[in-house]
Amino acid sequence: MRRLSLNQKTTNGWSVPEAVDGCVRAGLEAIGLWREPVREYGVAESARLVRDAGLRVSSLCRGGFLTVADDAHRRRTIDDNRRAIDEAADLNARCLVMVVGGLPDGSGSGAPVLPGSTTHDQSADDEAGQRRDRDLHGARQRVADGIAELVPYALDRGVQLALEPMHPMYCADRGVLSTLGQALDLAEQHPVEAVGVVVDTFHVWWDPDVERQIRRASGRIASFQVCDWITPLPADTLLARGMMGDGHIDLRHLRRLVEAAGYRGDIEVEIFNADIWAAAPDDVVTLMKQRYAATVLDPTPSPSR
Amino acid sequence: MRRLSLNQKTTNGWSVPEAVDGCVRAGLEAIGLWREPVREYGVAESARLVRDAGLRVSSLCRGGFLTVADDAHRRRTIDDNRRAIDEAADLNARCLVMVVGGLPDGSGSGAPVLPGSTTHDQSADDEAGQRRDRDLHGARQRVADGIAELVPYALDRGVQLALEPMHPMYCADRGVLSTLGQALDLAEQHPVEAVGVVVDTFHVWWDPDVERQIRRASGRIASFQVCDWITPLPADTLLARGMMGDGHIDLRHLRRLVEAAGYRGDIEVEIFNADIWAAAPDDVVTLMKQRYAATVLDPTPSPSR
Repeated sequence: MRRLSLNQKTTNGWSVPEAVDGCVRAGLEAIGLWREPVREYGVAESARLVRDAGLRVSSLCRGGFLTVADDAHRRRTIDDNRRAIDEAADLNARCLVMVVGGLPDGSGSGAPVLPGSTTHDQSADDEAGQRRDRDLHGARQRVADGIAELVPYALDRGVQLALEPMHPMYCADRGVLSTLGQALDLAEQHPVEAVGVVVDTFHVWWDPDVERQIRRASGRIASFQVCDWITPLPADTLLARGMMGDGHIDLRHLRRLVEAAGYRGDIEVEIFNADIWAAAPDDVVTLMKQRYAATVLDPTPSPSR
Repeated sequence: MRRLSLNQKTTNGWSVPEAVDGCVRAGLEAIGLWREPVREYGVAESARLVRDAGLRVSSLCRGGFLTVADDAHRRRTIDDNRRAIDEAADLNARCLVMVVGGLPDGSGSGAPVLPGSTTHDQSADDEAGQRRDRDLHGARQRVADGIAELVPYALDRGVQLALEPMHPMYCADRGVLSTLGQALDLAEQHPVEAVGVVVDTFHVWWDPDVERQIRRASGRIASFQVCDWITPLPADTLLARGMMGDGHIDLRHLRRLVEAAGYRGDIEVEIFNADIWAAAPDDVVTLMKQRYAATVLDPTPSPSR
């Protein structure tokens, strides 16, 4: 239980002080923080609070969104990532989680054009075909360029960037890093002090190559996050994560693989789920602890046997 | 336009005769059929109809669902796949598409257990943790075993099984073959006459390894299917496919890769989408032809330039 960390997104209604108090009440030793609530409470104040409470900051979420295509937007994004690195340093966070961003036009502004609703001709369709940026290779290259640009600053501030491969379901709109292997291809171009990877069970569990890539990640795993894949998938796929045990992932197997690769850091529970957010946060933390013991840790041998 | 094939699922309201008539009216030369409507009209009758209409059957959907764990269910599934092979042979279908199946308990019978709704104790959670089959490796092994068992019959009937890697979003509930590379690992264990692969843009577009795997698939591509990835993803992920041009996939790029790998067969449009199913089927076919020309084929050079 000493390695269990509450990512504050799991108890989304809690401010930083509430989440810190909640962790202390529950006997947890680590917390994963998000930039928005941290900035709301104040970075220095948040840092003092977690330090005084004796909590480790297992991660700060999140930097990234490096796929933007136009130069001005790109400069602002790099600047914002430098601020995120500063905040991670001030909080003494174990790493800064990087959600790299989807395609520049990936979040689906345009509704589908249905048959019969308008006149279609070839030229109009051609135009529709051109309007959106569908260059996935280019987006991935901009991520690599952006990380390379941030590495010297991360080294300077002593912050490890943690590349998070995201489930391929988010490739268009959230993250074009889609597999652990791809994240490692990028991370390995840089010193391990500057760039590691996140292993999040929700994002990687399906990958036929996951065993091999976790072994390969030895020494590069900056963060291990757990939650479950539930079916049917909730309507809003951004809120599709489930409490451990409610879904289909063999969490214990993945935890063992990550440990066999040498990871001994915190195990963070990050759940985006409307039903869990609607529940009382202390109850969520209690359930999280029970499920962590029952589905992530090794079973305790029964004394009666 | 001669290679464009209408998968009858795109015009879901049409029976086999209606779909055949619709193809002929639209000047198409090929059709992808589904077992259920074919059996409703009659296999021999459907075969005669498509032959008399001069249509190629680019694929029959679908065999598979080989991940079932209990023996009796498994026997029935293998028998049903043999019937599907017979039907594909009778229809002179180019291939039998294999949707391999998800985890045995993958379709999400159990609602998530929320904090506060019931008493949770460790033993209950342990039980919940045990109840479901989370053995993804085992499920994948059963697929390999099932394919191996079907190969002699497929060779005997002259039918190529087309392994369809499915988007990782469907790993739990539809298909544990998640990448083209994984499908090829399995297909390459068998003669190419018996086992090929499907390249479906919706399922593979996100894969950082897709260029390499399509090259590797040279000679093994049994079917090329196109539709688009739209955002936001519709609430029912099984109906999440979009008309070409409405989403984020660079379809032309993938079509060129498949052709560079030597594929010269039909290009089938298979769209599961409630809005498209609600539209008039003839309008859907008209739009499909326009979008196919505009987003899949190479642009026609403008004579004015």
